[in-house]
Amino acid sequence: MSNFNELISFIRTEVNRDLKRLPIPERPIYLYEPIRFALRGKGKRFRPILVHLAGRANNADPDSLMKIALAVELLHNFTLVHDDIMDNDNMRHGQEAVHFKWDNSTAILAGDGIYAIAQILLSGLPDRANALCRSFNQATLEVCEGQALDKEFENDLSITEDQYLKMIEKKTGSLLGACAEMPATLVGADEEVVNSFDKFGRALGIGFQIHDDLLEIYGNPNVMGKSLGSDIAEGKQTLLVIKARNQFRKEWGDIVGDSDKSNLMEKIRSFFTEKGIEDETKEMAQSYFKSARNSLENIGDLNRDELNEFINLVENRTY
Amino acid sequence: MSNFNELISFIRTEVNRDLKRLPIPERPIYLYEPIRFALRGKGKRFRPILVHLAGRANNADPDSLMKIALAVELLHNFTLVHDDIMDNDNMRHGQEAVHFKWDNSTAILAGDGIYAIAQILLSGLPDRANALCRSFNQATLEVCEGQALDKEFENDLSITEDQYLKMIEKKTGSLLGACAEMPATLVGADEEVVNSFDKFGRALGIGFQIHDDLLEIYGNPNVMGKSLGSDIAEGKQTLLVIKARNQFRKEWGDIVGDSDKSNLMEKIRSFFTEKGIEDETKEMAQSYFKSARNSLENIGDLNRDELNEFINLVENRTY
Repeated sequence: MSNFNELISFIRTEVNRDLKRLPIPERPIYLYEPIRFALRGKGKRFRPILVHLAGRANNADPDSLMKIALAVELLHNFTLVHDDIMDNDNMRHGQEAVHFKWDNSTAILAGDGIYAIAQILLSGLPDRANALCRSFNQATLEVCEGQALDKEFENDLSITEDQYLKMIEKKTGSLLGACAEMPATLVGADEEVVNSFDKFGRALGIGFQIHDDLLEIYGNPNVMGKSLGSDIAEGKQTLLVIKARNQFRKEWGDIVGDSDKSNLMEKIRSFFTEKGIEDETKEMAQSYFKSARNSLENIGDLNRDELNEFINLVENRTY
Repeated sequence: MSNFNELISFIRTEVNRDLKRLPIPERPIYLYEPIRFALRGKGKRFRPILVHLAGRANNADPDSLMKIALAVELLHNFTLVHDDIMDNDNMRHGQEAVHFKWDNSTAILAGDGIYAIAQILLSGLPDRANALCRSFNQATLEVCEGQALDKEFENDLSITEDQYLKMIEKKTGSLLGACAEMPATLVGADEEVVNSFDKFGRALGIGFQIHDDLLEIYGNPNVMGKSLGSDIAEGKQTLLVIKARNQFRKEWGDIVGDSDKSNLMEKIRSFFTEKGIEDETKEMAQSYFKSARNSLENIGDLNRDELNEFINLVENRTY
């Protein structure tokens, strides 16, 4: 294992340890049991890892970085708990979603509580609390906007690639932008550097999401199958579907409209590959990762090695 | 109209004007239309008014006070939008509740967005952002705890007065405590003064809620009626019900268990009056208002006249 992978693994362990150590009370059980449960899920902790790496590039204080890292991970989990209600997703991070294990009311309140705890953590930062609080909450509002667009796009067959990209920038990119930018804000970096970190994180986030769309289709042929195929046939939006629908309307309609649903996922997969949609989508992901690397060129003489390695890691992930 | 009533009316108008002026975008419609709708409701604006009055006593900067006042009103509205989903309440502030006019997903996201906007407002404060952010979010978490207890207490016939009082302190008192305390925190008042403002607000909030329980039963005999009577028979918890159940278990059980539901509300009302529960509850509310006045004795040589008048106003309200 390379030094970099060891570093990532070390940071993840530290983040998980400090997440477990958060002083979350026992009672009221109705509030805190589901919160503890949600935070126990097997998240990849990409966001807090990015905070730490961006913080290392900025020579930021590790204790303050950990507060930001945990706040960001809590924010992410708060949005997931609520999104899972809205999207009726029953599994999350290898365990039942909160609204599925308990009920909607419990999950609404658990999400609210997680967000409040995140902000209490942030308020413990010694410096530049205003600017950090603003970044954090503007990112939250943008994530909400992204989720709103996602809901608006449901079953809308006229969505363009640009609209989809705007949606994932808000839903995923804005928070990764905040993860990359907040450590620079913490140390009082120039506005231009702060903006470059934000751009880097946003591009990384968009690339991450497009890569996710690809992994969902090609990632693990054994696990994939019926449910994804029918989700897609029923109008689930991914970049590949939008490309298929807009470039090959008739042929695509024939596939998803076919009453014979046998091997549907295999047919969709082959279609994407044969029509060049798989390659086109891969190239788009690559272009966002490239754009993330370019933004890192503008962070002055800070060491960007670990951040570039992190881009590689995201770009090459297979799970 | 007294000068004080004119002052309250003036502050309410200013708060409503600035709420309308909040730079809330048009799109995504899915997010911002319900947010604008929720903020248009006819709330009494007690909380932002309390912020301004406590701020006047502390000679705090009016612009900063308005940011805190709006943030607090937004926070209150965020919790109402989510509570209305959890409690299945269909009306709020004289209009349809968001989840009822749209759906649960819309209301969850609208509440989240309102909370984020509140925090962005707070992050615009020039001074002591950390401490204010902490107060604000600790109050939020306590409101969540109060709502959690409220859910735990549903249909639990063993709830005691003390448990109920603890619940309403968290659900209502904590936020009024923050409203009263944040202006003192803003001007850097001594910890003892800050704590006295918090205690004053909490006692006021508990008194407010008990008074609300009384108003619900005795406030407007023409409007009240069938639905409240059956809510109570079905286990809705108020201080009066808990007293009736715990002091007169058999007789109370006979009333709410009676298959003849005619004039149920009148029977409940007479029972509370004849058994002395009405008077006992009034005395408890008075004792909390008195305790609020006592806490104001500890705010040094600040002018407490308007805050005492505000207690009178809350104590004597009939709507």
